[in-house]
Amino acid sequence: MFLVIKWGRKLMNKKYELIYEGKAKKVFSHDDADKVIIEFKDDATAFNALKKAKFEGKGKLNCLISVSIFELLIKNNIPNHFIELKNENTIIAKKIKVIPLEIVLRNTAYGSLCKQTTIKSGTFLSKPLIDIYLKNDELNDPLVTKDRIELMNIISSKDLDLIISLTLKINEILISYFKKIQLKLVDFKLEFGYDSNNRIILGDEVSPDNCRLWDLKQNNDMIVSLDKDRFRNDLGGLIEAYSEIYNRINDFI
Amino acid sequence: MFLVIKWGRKLMNKKYELIYEGKAKKVFSHDDADKVIIEFKDDATAFNALKKAKFEGKGKLNCLISVSIFELLIKNNIPNHFIELKNENTIIAKKIKVIPLEIVLRNTAYGSLCKQTTIKSGTFLSKPLIDIYLKNDELNDPLVTKDRIELMNIISSKDLDLIISLTLKINEILISYFKKIQLKLVDFKLEFGYDSNNRIILGDEVSPDNCRLWDLKQNNDMIVSLDKDRFRNDLGGLIEAYSEIYNRINDFI
Repeated sequence: MFLVIKWGRKLMNKKYELIYEGKAKKVFSHDDADKVIIEFKDDATAFNALKKAKFEGKGKLNCLISVSIFELLIKNNIPNHFIELKNENTIIAKKIKVIPLEIVLRNTAYGSLCKQTTIKSGTFLSKPLIDIYLKNDELNDPLVTKDRIELMNIISSKDLDLIISLTLKINEILISYFKKIQLKLVDFKLEFGYDSNNRIILGDEVSPDNCRLWDLKQNNDMIVSLDKDRFRNDLGGLIEAYSEIYNRINDFI
Repeated sequence: MFLVIKWGRKLMNKKYELIYEGKAKKVFSHDDADKVIIEFKDDATAFNALKKAKFEGKGKLNCLISVSIFELLIKNNIPNHFIELKNENTIIAKKIKVIPLEIVLRNTAYGSLCKQTTIKSGTFLSKPLIDIYLKNDELNDPLVTKDRIELMNIISSKDLDLIISLTLKINEILISYFKKIQLKLVDFKLEFGYDSNNRIILGDEVSPDNCRLWDLKQNNDMIVSLDKDRFRNDLGGLIEAYSEIYNRINDFI
C-alpha cells in the first residue's frame, strides 16, 4: 500500500510505502530515512478493537489537536517526534523505534482502573498514578509491573524511570494547559520511542483518542466527556466533542 | 454453622462457630480470642472457582504438608500462624487480620504469567519474580502494582517491603528443602496477616494447592506436576501426587 501525497506547493504526487498500520494511524516511509509520514485515520476502536467505527473528520481533528499539543510540549522542552504538519490529517515525524509500552497517567480514577481495583470511579487521586501496559494486541495489552518489564528485557530500569519522569512533567504541563481552556485532564496514555540518536522521545499522538477530558464549563456535578468515551460508552456526539476541543485550543492560541 | 471437635484426649465435644469459609478452608472461633481453628476442606477450585471438584483426602494431605512446612519455617525464624495440629485436617492457629493480597513468587515462568507477558512457559527466571494480586473474588483477583496497592491504602509501603523480603527468604528455604526431596519449586502463593501484636506473620497454607512442584525424579525433560495443576489442567491423579509429596516429606524427616 502507498500514500500519494502532494508534496509542498507543487502538485508533485509522490508515492510513499506503508510501513505500519495501527488502529488509528498509518505510518509511511519518507525520503529521509530518519523521518516518517503519519496519517491519522478516521477509524475509532475500543476495548482492544472489539468495538469499531468510522467517524468522518476524526483523523483531521486528532492530527491538528496533537500538533498543538506537540508544539506546546516542545516549548516546554519535552522532546517529541513531531516535525511539521503536512496535510490536515498528516504529519512528518522523526522515525522512532517504538518502545512497546503504553504509559497511562491517571489524575482521577475512571474506566478500567475501577474495574481492577477497589478505587471508586471519579475519585481524585492524591498523587498521579502511573499504570504501564504491554503494547501487545494478542495478549490484550495487559497491565505490567516494573519487575515484569525488567524480566521481558523491554527497556532498562533507567530508561523506564526517565519515561515515568517525562510523563509526570507532561501531566503538569497538560493539566495547566487544559484547565485554561476549561477542560479537566482525567487521564491519558502516552507512547515513547528511541530516535536516531537513541534518545527517548514522545511519539504517537496526544488527542481526545488517548486523553480523557471532562468539560469544566458544566456547573453541575455531571460528567461531560469530550473524548473517546463518547464512542466507548455510546454517548454519541464524538465529532462534536473533538471539534469543541479543537476550537477551544484554537481560540486560546 | 459449627465445628464439633473432640478436644484433647477426652471425648469432650465442643461447638465452635464458623467465622469464615474460603474455597479450601473453614475458620472457626476458639475459646482463646487470639486463636482460631482451621479445617482444611477436600474441595478444589481453580480459575477463581469457575472449575470445582472434591477430592477425598485432599484436606488432610494439605493440612499435614502445611504443618511440616510451617514447622520448617519456624525453625528458620519465619513467623507464621501455626500453633498445633489438632486433627489430621485441622490446626489451631494464631488469629490474624488477613492482608487482602496474594503474594506470588515465581522461579520458573508457568501458568498465568505466560498468558500475560511475552515470557515463554518453562523459562527459568534470572531472579525470582514477585507478582502481587488483590484478594478479591468479585474483581477476579487482579494483578496489582505497588502504586495501586498504595492508592488503595491496603498496607504501608514499609509493610509491603517486609512481606516481599519474607517471601524471598521463604523461597530460599523452600527451594533448598524441596530439592532435597527431589522436587522443583516452580512458584508459590502466600498470604500474610497481622497477629494480635500487630506483627506481620505468614498465614494460610503452604501445600500443593498453592505451590507448583515438579518431580525431579524424572530423568527426561517432561514436566510432571505434583500439584494443583493436575486438577487445573485435567491431568488426573491429584490425590496420588499430593500423597507423593506427603510421603517424601515424611521419609525425609
